[in-house]
Amino acid sequence: MNNFEQYINDYLNSLKDNHIKDAMIYTMEGGKRFRPRIIFAIMKGFNLDESLSYDCALALEEIQTYSLIHDDLPAMDNDDMRRGKPSCHKAFREDIAILTGDQLLTDSFGRIASSKYIDSDAKVKIIEAFSKYAGLDGMIYGQLLDVTNTSETIDPDKLFEIQDNKTGGLFKIACLTPMYIAKNDEYDYFVKLGSLIGQIFQNQDDLFDLIKSEEETGKNKSDIQNNKGTALSISTKEELIKIIDDEFDYLYEYLEKAPFDSGYLKDVINILKGR
Amino acid sequence: MNNFEQYINDYLNSLKDNHIKDAMIYTMEGGKRFRPRIIFAIMKGFNLDESLSYDCALALEEIQTYSLIHDDLPAMDNDDMRRGKPSCHKAFREDIAILTGDQLLTDSFGRIASSKYIDSDAKVKIIEAFSKYAGLDGMIYGQLLDVTNTSETIDPDKLFEIQDNKTGGLFKIACLTPMYIAKNDEYDYFVKLGSLIGQIFQNQDDLFDLIKSEEETGKNKSDIQNNKGTALSISTKEELIKIIDDEFDYLYEYLEKAPFDSGYLKDVINILKGR
Repeated sequence: MNNFEQYINDYLNSLKDNHIKDAMIYTMEGGKRFRPRIIFAIMKGFNLDESLSYDCALALEEIQTYSLIHDDLPAMDNDDMRRGKPSCHKAFREDIAILTGDQLLTDSFGRIASSKYIDSDAKVKIIEAFSKYAGLDGMIYGQLLDVTNTSETIDPDKLFEIQDNKTGGLFKIACLTPMYIAKNDEYDYFVKLGSLIGQIFQNQDDLFDLIKSEEETGKNKSDIQNNKGTALSISTKEELIKIIDDEFDYLYEYLEKAPFDSGYLKDVINILKGR
Repeated sequence: MNNFEQYINDYLNSLKDNHIKDAMIYTMEGGKRFRPRIIFAIMKGFNLDESLSYDCALALEEIQTYSLIHDDLPAMDNDDMRRGKPSCHKAFREDIAILTGDQLLTDSFGRIASSKYIDSDAKVKIIEAFSKYAGLDGMIYGQLLDVTNTSETIDPDKLFEIQDNKTGGLFKIACLTPMYIAKNDEYDYFVKLGSLIGQIFQNQDDLFDLIKSEEETGKNKSDIQNNKGTALSISTKEELIKIIDDEFDYLYEYLEKAPFDSGYLKDVINILKGR
């Protein structure tokens, strides 16, 4: 992971100086890089060097970061804090934050397209997956469901649909990317894998929002304050802890059927379990 | 162009129903499709069927439309009117407008990647050009220069830099796209061609902002109201008309050296001249 962190820094520092570059460096810093970790673990499971996927992993971090910047805007969740420091529109300006999000999204596709390490056919497939699952078949659709969900109660199916799109979208990309690089074609397996990991990740986040301080999570508890539907709208804390445990059990079982050596990915899942 | 308009409509209507789809249809409607016209004219100049480039042209219209939606936001130019009707955040909501812009940008790369009409190598090159010239080497950089330009006066070099990035960026993409589909490699020629057309287009827009009513242009005169640097900050109306005429002369001359049959593109330039 140190090499990847260096790779991100080298790339960002290579950009010409301007406010957007500053805001990109500011917002890309401090991410936990969970989605890249998943990409690298599956790469190794396919017996491929993780560095072949660095450009795609960087692209995915750019998309994750843009989504946080736009999500924090006053017209969206209106969050002042992110990753333990003022959110982008607070540290810079709202117009710079909008443009920085736009640039991270625009650049992500360029990172994949210009990668020296993968062939054109794989790039095209990966870009299709990014566009689909970061868009109306994934993250943006989940965001839309989220911002237009005004009902006081939320049923489990609706909550799953929101989370599987909003959070699951980028995890599906993380699982599909190494699949395409490895020229594997078990699409359904990898989409479900991303969905399972995303579900656990979101349920954990909802739980942490409740039991951890804002200092520990590094962000505002806006979902609770905004009365957004979260796993805790339909479960007690104890029930949610049990649900997450069961989801981990199911995920470990699912990994037994993986079309790659899943030991590396299990290590990453263990980190997720321990957080 | 009727076929392309139908192609856009068929695609947008094929999306699953939701507010973002509605806002995409609303905002994509009524565009003059100048950039697609340029793509198609160069395609024909290369003796290629224009329909081979429909997905790329649709992608470019999506990027043009997203940039207008985000540019109109309260934190940016704060424009209430666009293409003769309420701008996206007025007709829908600000959060929906942000997400719709994000989706148009996200989807544009998917349109190119999933096109049935061009090969992977061309797609990758076109996606690189889109990411570069719609990003920090083009449109977004121009936007940044624009929103951070607070000086009362602006010198011609600075104004050229803003316009050549902000407006020129997407015209460079329009010129490079058919070049890549045709497997031509005179990159510098096509970048300069886009730059020249973009310069004329922006100077005309600045002129129209002054001499046409808001009803005719279909948008607010925010650049003038916001005291933004435009061609009219450094030239009188008469001088600007002369500048545009000279730019047309230079462009027609430049087209004589085109590495494709430039008759079709001249027809499009004539439309631009007559508007």
